[in-house]
Amino acid sequence: MVTKKDIIGAREAIKDKVHYTPVFHSTILSKQCGYNLYMKAENLQKTGSFKIRGATNRLTNALNEGSLPGVITASSGNHGQAVAYVAQKAKVPCTVVMPENAPQAKIDAAKNYGAEIIFCGTTSQERLDKAQKLANEKGHLYIPPYDHPHIIAGQGTIGLEILEQVSDVQAVLVPIGGGGLLSGIVTAIKESAPQVKVYGVEPQFSNSMYISLQEGKITARDTIDTIADGLRSKQPGDLTFPIVKKYVDDILLVTDEEIIKTMKLIMQYQKLVVEPSGATATAAVLFNKLPSKYKTVTSIISGGNIDFSRLASLITQ
Amino acid sequence: MVTKKDIIGAREAIKDKVHYTPVFHSTILSKQCGYNLYMKAENLQKTGSFKIRGATNRLTNALNEGSLPGVITASSGNHGQAVAYVAQKAKVPCTVVMPENAPQAKIDAAKNYGAEIIFCGTTSQERLDKAQKLANEKGHLYIPPYDHPHIIAGQGTIGLEILEQVSDVQAVLVPIGGGGLLSGIVTAIKESAPQVKVYGVEPQFSNSMYISLQEGKITARDTIDTIADGLRSKQPGDLTFPIVKKYVDDILLVTDEEIIKTMKLIMQYQKLVVEPSGATATAAVLFNKLPSKYKTVTSIISGGNIDFSRLASLITQ
Repeated sequence: MVTKKDIIGAREAIKDKVHYTPVFHSTILSKQCGYNLYMKAENLQKTGSFKIRGATNRLTNALNEGSLPGVITASSGNHGQAVAYVAQKAKVPCTVVMPENAPQAKIDAAKNYGAEIIFCGTTSQERLDKAQKLANEKGHLYIPPYDHPHIIAGQGTIGLEILEQVSDVQAVLVPIGGGGLLSGIVTAIKESAPQVKVYGVEPQFSNSMYISLQEGKITARDTIDTIADGLRSKQPGDLTFPIVKKYVDDILLVTDEEIIKTMKLIMQYQKLVVEPSGATATAAVLFNKLPSKYKTVTSIISGGNIDFSRLASLITQ
Repeated sequence: MVTKKDIIGAREAIKDKVHYTPVFHSTILSKQCGYNLYMKAENLQKTGSFKIRGATNRLTNALNEGSLPGVITASSGNHGQAVAYVAQKAKVPCTVVMPENAPQAKIDAAKNYGAEIIFCGTTSQERLDKAQKLANEKGHLYIPPYDHPHIIAGQGTIGLEILEQVSDVQAVLVPIGGGGLLSGIVTAIKESAPQVKVYGVEPQFSNSMYISLQEGKITARDTIDTIADGLRSKQPGDLTFPIVKKYVDDILLVTDEEIIKTMKLIMQYQKLVVEPSGATATAAVLFNKLPSKYKTVTSIISGGNIDFSRLASLITQ
């Protein structure tokens, strides 16, 4: 299992390559929700999301073990962009496997970071199989989106930063896709300041971590329905689930409507561009999903990558 | 004339009441324009624009001279919001004179900060006359948007911060409405680090400072046509013009199309919500209006207050 020591190691490995992102306090939103609300702005991170932390840590560790002919990933979203960026910086060739119907903006983003794009099917399983097959054939390193100790430890560096930036924090809220961000942050916090509560937040109809914890074992959701495209995971990871089960205080659920309203509030009052997944944790604070006993809380704004056409449509709803 | 000493005084007066805003470096935009580009994010300032600096300094100085029955302003834009906010914090009644056709969003913003709204005509001269008449009748303090030493000195505090935050800055770019922001910043910089160049930036068809400098005296533009609503001034101020004339290195002009493209680039790569006026200075950097000899430059993002319907329409153009 990943430990605080791994996260401290990750911090050392990535410190010159990623931003130490700011934390913003919102007077207006604090007044509105009744908590003293801080937001950790990972949307201002390089490549527009936290994903670069894990990808950098994974690649740095792999390069320490020897040279690499290439890296490969199957994500067309924030993780894919992060891997392409990190590989380009390290001068390692990168391949991104994308669905045949991938939006042009995502194709362009990966190409801008110098990645080679391979199209394959339309389901994530097809892409995953293709990526792993290619990695084996070519001897390239497959970098998974969350289920690897280096990825989890990289994302966990956010937890260390929050404890430094918000010294009186009582509760931290983290969005859940596969659970990499949450398992990293909760490890950093519970092994440094165990009195601080850590909550995972899932969209109501993409809540496989919630279901899995109820069942006591990794359990898939058949249908996923949420606007938060970064959080559409069918089930938790083999590595992330046990960590979440061990440490996380509770899972909170929010609706898509609450997510959209929160995006708009963050844009209006904090002047930050945020994607739906990035607004999910803050939505749990603003829409009263959290026990009222806390005074100071911090939510993660996990990313800000969103097409203008989609953003325009959401903010005028 | 306002001096660096006044600006240091303003800094002391406002330091616990306004944000020391962050400066962001953009790798992608720097690569695109060929300069090492930093942006001073006054859109993250309280009330969403730099205007609170001048308003706070003016009110603080006035209160030091005795109690105040009230303050009054004629601006429905960022200055009006800033005055309403500052007055509410200081528990001083505030009146904002607005045009009869003011957008509901601006009325609501001033009301949210506890201001009383009075509607009057549709031209700025009608509102100005009304505000000054009311101020005289009631003994309230009229707070002008730019042409007052305390306002200029308050805005100038941004110049001191930039010199601390970007120690190797060679050129600073500032948008021009009435010239309060520019005259404050240029005073702070030229009286601290005279080797740093300071440029004002105006929309092509709202360039009364440019025309006035060419004419050698304050000169009005008859018609104003720009999307940058915060920069629609007919002529420079009596106090701001001599300062700009004395110190500013040059005035650069940008088109509305360049302003809109810059808004989109700042949103896409920096994840910051910016209003058209707020993107104007950066547009001069990104669209090659600046001499190419500089390595490190800093533009002011002056504000981020924009209605969602307008924002949606601009980003999908």
